[in-house]
Amino acid sequence: MKLDSAGLRVLSHEECMNLLATAPIGRIVFTDRALPAVQPVNFVLDGTDIVIRTTVGSKLAAATRRAIVAFEADAFDPEGRTGWSVTVVGHARAVDDPAEAERLAGLPLTPWAPGSRDHYIVIAAEQVSGREITGG
Amino acid sequence: MKLDSAGLRVLSHEECMNLLATAPIGRIVFTDRALPAVQPVNFVLDGTDIVIRTTVGSKLAAATRRAIVAFEADAFDPEGRTGWSVTVVGHARAVDDPAEAERLAGLPLTPWAPGSRDHYIVIAAEQVSGREITGG
Repeated sequence: MKLDSAGLRVLSHEECMNLLATAPIGRIVFTDRALPAVQPVNFVLDGTDIVIRTTVGSKLAAATRRAIVAFEADAFDPEGRTGWSVTVVGHARAVDDPAEAERLAGLPLTPWAPGSRDHYIVIAAEQVSGREITGG
Repeated sequence: MKLDSAGLRVLSHEECMNLLATAPIGRIVFTDRALPAVQPVNFVLDGTDIVIRTTVGSKLAAATRRAIVAFEADAFDPEGRTGWSVTVVGHARAVDDPAEAERLAGLPLTPWAPGSRDHYIVIAAEQVSGREITGG
């Protein structure tokens, strides 16, 4: 069992991707007007890519175009003080190719927010790290 | 009812602070070696300040010293597709004054992670924003 400097168990790449697949919501971390910004989004995995939907004119679409972003998902149990978190860092790109957008439209990814959201952002999982806190 | 450009309800400052007070875990967003970074932490509110505990030599302590950071908490119900998120942006500072550290040690803030964590970071809630997604 590998522990990090904080005493948390380090998750393997495979554990990280398996846990990410269980999370309905993640948080995309980017820079907005030189300030740190974070926004929860629902998402789906496409292989190891993270796929989210937004509107073409959104702040998120503008801020993540050709940017390096972080994406985090987690689940915690406050009673047992256990849980896990996984963070991905990688390049975000807007999907401009209609054929790719059509393929992504077939993924099980329905926006929670109202309105039409047919703009796709794909984050490549270039760095993946995760930790587990086991309580006690 | 005020909606944002994405159709989500905009929470008032008071609603944001009340919701933050209910969250056991938040996520601190900072920059680590020029890359976006995010780390879940348990926290407590001290007035409108966010207080977290870490170890003095941690990456978090180094990266947030005199930095502007974001801090996010949320709660979502995947079944009903409802939930809220609140984001604070402000200056983070390390607590170097022993009297202040002693006062903060009296707050109900017990680290989940193992080990001694007697280094306090305080984030001033200079910008507070929140959204609610009501489903349907």
